[in-house]
Amino acid sequence: MHEAPSIDGNTKIMGMIGSPVTQVKTPQAINPIFAEAGANILCVPFHVDDLESAMAGFRAMHNLIGFGVTLPHKQQIASLCDSLDPAAEQVEAVNVVRRERDGSFRGYQFDGRGFVGGLMAQGHDPKGRSVLVIGAGGASAAIVTALIMAGASEVGISNRTTSRAEALAQQVRARIGGNVHACDPVPKPGQMIINATSLGMDEADALPLDPALLDESMLVAEVIAKPAITALLKQARQRGATIHGGQHMIEGQVPMIAAHFLALYGPDQIKA
Amino acid sequence: MHEAPSIDGNTKIMGMIGSPVTQVKTPQAINPIFAEAGANILCVPFHVDDLESAMAGFRAMHNLIGFGVTLPHKQQIASLCDSLDPAAEQVEAVNVVRRERDGSFRGYQFDGRGFVGGLMAQGHDPKGRSVLVIGAGGASAAIVTALIMAGASEVGISNRTTSRAEALAQQVRARIGGNVHACDPVPKPGQMIINATSLGMDEADALPLDPALLDESMLVAEVIAKPAITALLKQARQRGATIHGGQHMIEGQVPMIAAHFLALYGPDQIKA
Repeated sequence: MHEAPSIDGNTKIMGMIGSPVTQVKTPQAINPIFAEAGANILCVPFHVDDLESAMAGFRAMHNLIGFGVTLPHKQQIASLCDSLDPAAEQVEAVNVVRRERDGSFRGYQFDGRGFVGGLMAQGHDPKGRSVLVIGAGGASAAIVTALIMAGASEVGISNRTTSRAEALAQQVRARIGGNVHACDPVPKPGQMIINATSLGMDEADALPLDPALLDESMLVAEVIAKPAITALLKQARQRGATIHGGQHMIEGQVPMIAAHFLALYGPDQIKA
Repeated sequence: MHEAPSIDGNTKIMGMIGSPVTQVKTPQAINPIFAEAGANILCVPFHVDDLESAMAGFRAMHNLIGFGVTLPHKQQIASLCDSLDPAAEQVEAVNVVRRERDGSFRGYQFDGRGFVGGLMAQGHDPKGRSVLVIGAGGASAAIVTALIMAGASEVGISNRTTSRAEALAQQVRARIGGNVHACDPVPKPGQMIINATSLGMDEADALPLDPALLDESMLVAEVIAKPAITALLKQARQRGATIHGGQHMIEGQVPMIAAHFLALYGPDQIKA
């Protein structure tokens, strides 16, 4: 039996869209935060394929304050927003859309900040650290940006196609500065190593780097949440490195996303 | 502080649309019924003005199983449905839309059935009773139809413009038969008298009939829920008549609407 929630005509709705949507964990994670804050906001799933029609509908529902976005909509939704925050613009992908004070829909990207938040929640502050990021795709772009903004002293980007790593490094430097450069997939003592490729989702995948190069001075982190312990993390653990699973990136985002909505739609704002 | 409800990626959404929507009571009334039935269905409000865009959005949300409709959308939504049930067709107004098995959106009208359900819940079975209905608008059409279907022996319809009462009586006879006719606003001993006009919402309104004609043999009922005791009900009570407030029509509908959604989307249907 399900609990009967306290929903009334004043309840504001935060959607969580995807296709499928049955696997999402955001409603379960974020609703207790809204409740704890005393906000009459509820996150509910919407299984959506036709994004354009859904977006028109969302705009027409005045008490819908925005929505989270999961696969396969993160890219397409960016083109349907009225504006993008710098992080979303950089990775050309959106995972949160918020209705702003002026009624417009703005796309945000919390993956990078969520990753750094997850690191910090586990006691791994990237401030002043040297970091090796494997991969130069959307996840990497988000994470590299967030690492620089969090004060990482150096970020090396390694990618099978080196030119993509160089392009990303240059793009980040141009936008926000920082010591960012392309490099080989060779970790240095004391580094944080982050796998931001999809290698490891499948058991048959190759490892993103040579595990013989890992040692106990390093922290090895994943963006992959399933499996919880990838082949890379297994190897890293065997060699005495500290490991950090991909689920922390998701966990790290939820409080940020809640705060982002509460900043405009929390009980303090209602009174103001 | 609000309770944190148990919502996950499998939750089905029933909307409740209106403009404004803050006054609605359906979520509070129907969610406990869904929970009690073990259904992962949640009713949430949507404040909607642009009905066409909202409807396109609703169609694009696959886990939205339908919605309740309140003012000012009951007429316009009828034209946006793929089909209407006979009650909705008759009154040209819809107060529930359900996504059917084939994916189409069908409009339903529960006001009449809700009114009769509310009567019966209070021990006032219209079966075999003679009834006088004041008014010949949408509410009257719904109630007259439901009364005949519930076995009322006679329904007289009184309206300021007599031709409208005659037209409604004829329409009901043609559709479902029954002893329905236009009449003067003169109650007979033992009758149920139902005010299906909006007279009484405002304190300055005229009474819908001469209260001197009321006596203790009669039941006097309202469709108006606010005020809870209209001027007509006050007069009726002073003359010893049994009175029946408009809130019962709303209360009477909720279990029916819940059952209507559970019939397609309840836990038994999921297993089937």
